[in-house]
Amino acid sequence: MPAETRTLKVALLGAGNVGSQVARILLEDADSLAARTGARLELAGIAVRNIDAPRDVELPRELFTTDASALVRGADVVIELMGGLEPARALILEAIEHGATVVTGNKALLAVDGPSLYEKADAAGVQLSYEAAVAGAIPILRPIRDSLAGDKITRVMGIVNGTTNFILDQMDTTGAPFADALAQATRLGYAEADPTADIEGHDAAAKGAILASLSFHTRFALEDVHCQGITSVTAADVAAAKDAGFVIKLLAIAEKLPVPAPSGKDDGGHSSGVSVRVHPTLLPREHPLAAVHGAFNAVFIEAESAGQLMFYGQGAGGTPTASAVLGDVVSAARRLVLGGPGRTETTTGVLPVLGIEAVTTQYYIGLDAADQPGVLAKISALFAEHGVSIETMRQTVHRERDADGDGGAGSAELRIVTHRASEAALAATVQAIKGLDIINSVTSVLRVEGV
Amino acid sequence: MPAETRTLKVALLGAGNVGSQVARILLEDADSLAARTGARLELAGIAVRNIDAPRDVELPRELFTTDASALVRGADVVIELMGGLEPARALILEAIEHGATVVTGNKALLAVDGPSLYEKADAAGVQLSYEAAVAGAIPILRPIRDSLAGDKITRVMGIVNGTTNFILDQMDTTGAPFADALAQATRLGYAEADPTADIEGHDAAAKGAILASLSFHTRFALEDVHCQGITSVTAADVAAAKDAGFVIKLLAIAEKLPVPAPSGKDDGGHSSGVSVRVHPTLLPREHPLAAVHGAFNAVFIEAESAGQLMFYGQGAGGTPTASAVLGDVVSAARRLVLGGPGRTETTTGVLPVLGIEAVTTQYYIGLDAADQPGVLAKISALFAEHGVSIETMRQTVHRERDADGDGGAGSAELRIVTHRASEAALAATVQAIKGLDIINSVTSVLRVEGV
Repeated sequence: MPAETRTLKVALLGAGNVGSQVARILLEDADSLAARTGARLELAGIAVRNIDAPRDVELPRELFTTDASALVRGADVVIELMGGLEPARALILEAIEHGATVVTGNKALLAVDGPSLYEKADAAGVQLSYEAAVAGAIPILRPIRDSLAGDKITRVMGIVNGTTNFILDQMDTTGAPFADALAQATRLGYAEADPTADIEGHDAAAKGAILASLSFHTRFALEDVHCQGITSVTAADVAAAKDAGFVIKLLAIAEKLPVPAPSGKDDGGHSSGVSVRVHPTLLPREHPLAAVHGAFNAVFIEAESAGQLMFYGQGAGGTPTASAVLGDVVSAARRLVLGGPGRTETTTGVLPVLGIEAVTTQYYIGLDAADQPGVLAKISALFAEHGVSIETMRQTVHRERDADGDGGAGSAELRIVTHRASEAALAATVQAIKGLDIINSVTSVLRVEGV
Repeated sequence: MPAETRTLKVALLGAGNVGSQVARILLEDADSLAARTGARLELAGIAVRNIDAPRDVELPRELFTTDASALVRGADVVIELMGGLEPARALILEAIEHGATVVTGNKALLAVDGPSLYEKADAAGVQLSYEAAVAGAIPILRPIRDSLAGDKITRVMGIVNGTTNFILDQMDTTGAPFADALAQATRLGYAEADPTADIEGHDAAAKGAILASLSFHTRFALEDVHCQGITSVTAADVAAAKDAGFVIKLLAIAEKLPVPAPSGKDDGGHSSGVSVRVHPTLLPREHPLAAVHGAFNAVFIEAESAGQLMFYGQGAGGTPTASAVLGDVVSAARRLVLGGPGRTETTTGVLPVLGIEAVTTQYYIGLDAADQPGVLAKISALFAEHGVSIETMRQTVHRERDADGDGGAGSAELRIVTHRASEAALAATVQAIKGLDIINSVTSVLRVEGV
């Protein structure tokens, strides 16, 4: 171990849920952190908007300041945990300009502005780390960047939003409808007062963009991610999926796919590209991701040599996320002490971004049809016409009694799982099905993965 | 990205299962590896005992040599995949002396001689990495060392031997006895011709020592690990565990525990120490490790801030293990190119090694007793006398018919799960139970974790 010869000034921006835990650990574990890094990590100050706001952790009042900019200018390491776009972005840029190492957990900012921030940090020779931005406490970015550096990732599927996983897990275990499960998530503190960013998939999309960028050595931004939330998932969908041996999870998926020909886009002559998408997904119950319950997160990776890997842990919460932040801080401090180079983002791949039209998956389709002879034949013919082939079809008949008390006109519930099909072929099929007079309604259309 | 300006000479020692895949990838992916590291990784040669031995992968004959020592002396990076103690140790020492970076997957050597090798590498300022030594393809050592560097690990539990996990999983799913499951593992290539190192837990113990060393910043060797294999696990144990909602797994466990007072050992005044052990363990079926099937591996970590984490993937196999080796090679090469420092092992903790007597766990005990009134009372009293408290007790009576055809003397199968108890208290209890005339036999004594 190098002797403890140096003090590194640490500026903390934000003292919310995560920030206050980071401050606590920096103060409480100062000695052991010094032993591990070879430098004393001195918490120089904590920038907040309101010094008197109530906080989870009691912290020395003299550390607080409202002048974030002054704090940043005097720091060796800047930890940005304010969230949001501004002033976080301006302060990170200021830190980079002053040559400070930056650690952030700000997925929203990285998803929008990551590429430009990484470039500026590279140009300034400054480290920018963000393990806490994806899947909270789970060490996932470093393994992708370093441990799998000699391998080729082909697909990443992540449960990266704890709120939606809690809601879907509740719906699966109790049969509750979406609204009730959301209400419970809110009551237990798993969902925020305004849950839009979670339930519409925006939070998962931001994390998907970051995961995809690291996995495929290509920079993806939020607008590259096709995004569908879980608000339209019904209790009937969940029950039908369960019945067929599936569980519904909100997944962020990034995968390498062949560029469809003709792509219509300028794909730079690449034969493969990357699709990044977030949508509710049927997974077989024996898939490792199916066993991820409650608000836990997990990221499932397929790589050419390594095969299947999964990383599991807490995706949110002050203390767990603080663990990821401090892992980055210690690594950064070791680097500063030993004088080594910062890590640079590798964007050697620069693969084209593929739209959702390049993706083929299996589909699950729920239909409410008239119970008449020939219904199955008509529907099967329609799928075949559109080039979508059916893997399994199940029919449950609900017969209503008419006034005479004998069997009257009934309805049939059809559940179809297709083979792989493109979004376009599937959409055309569904459109055509809706036009059949024997169809009462299309009750659900969901993608299936991991079969 | 730095321009590609340099060629690094890579010496490969061994061309077995893993080595031949590493060679293949180094040759096939030379361009993409060069782009990722900033250096061309030139496979300078492959040292083997017998050039004409059959191999999984066809490799250029001119790369092979039997002069490992000469190969090592001319290399920037030495990849040791021969296994075994010698000549692997001598060649690694030679590499360190010549200032070459070393990557190895040799868990047996590291478990026996790790501490001395790390010291020599540190002293020479040379990197020594060994991600492939534990849990094959799973990136686990780097996350422990780097990502959790700002956290405090309290416990690590790993399924780190695929052979025994396959056998126990077979026993669990099919009800097969140990011998049949072992025979099937051998037939399918999951067990070696001589399976001793796997089924007696020695392989898991070596990996446990490495995991414990990194997790607790203290150096553990193989002899510090309490080790019990799976040869005595019966089909009846597995069935009884299943019936009670448990699954039996062979776990390598390293945990921080209070030093028992008086410890009798020189514990350097520490109040806590670390126990490292390998034994068959009952886990609740809802525990994340319980869902690890077949020959897969997984490591479950509990840390003060991060909470529960799990890392899952393939623990063996040529290509998956090659992924871990190449991750280390790429990291090492980046470091060499950028001129940064090697990583040093941190042994800041230096906690005392605690023997199995310091460990308390819950226990599962199976008893075959006479079916007589008062049996339960006698046994309960005996547990209480030895200070071991019972959590649950189940009795199944098997009544035999006597010559008259009416109920004769029968036997009762008792299954007891205790609260936490020390090995000594439990052993004394079991000893006393064996002395009771109403007891036919103690059919099993197994530890329980994860409840």
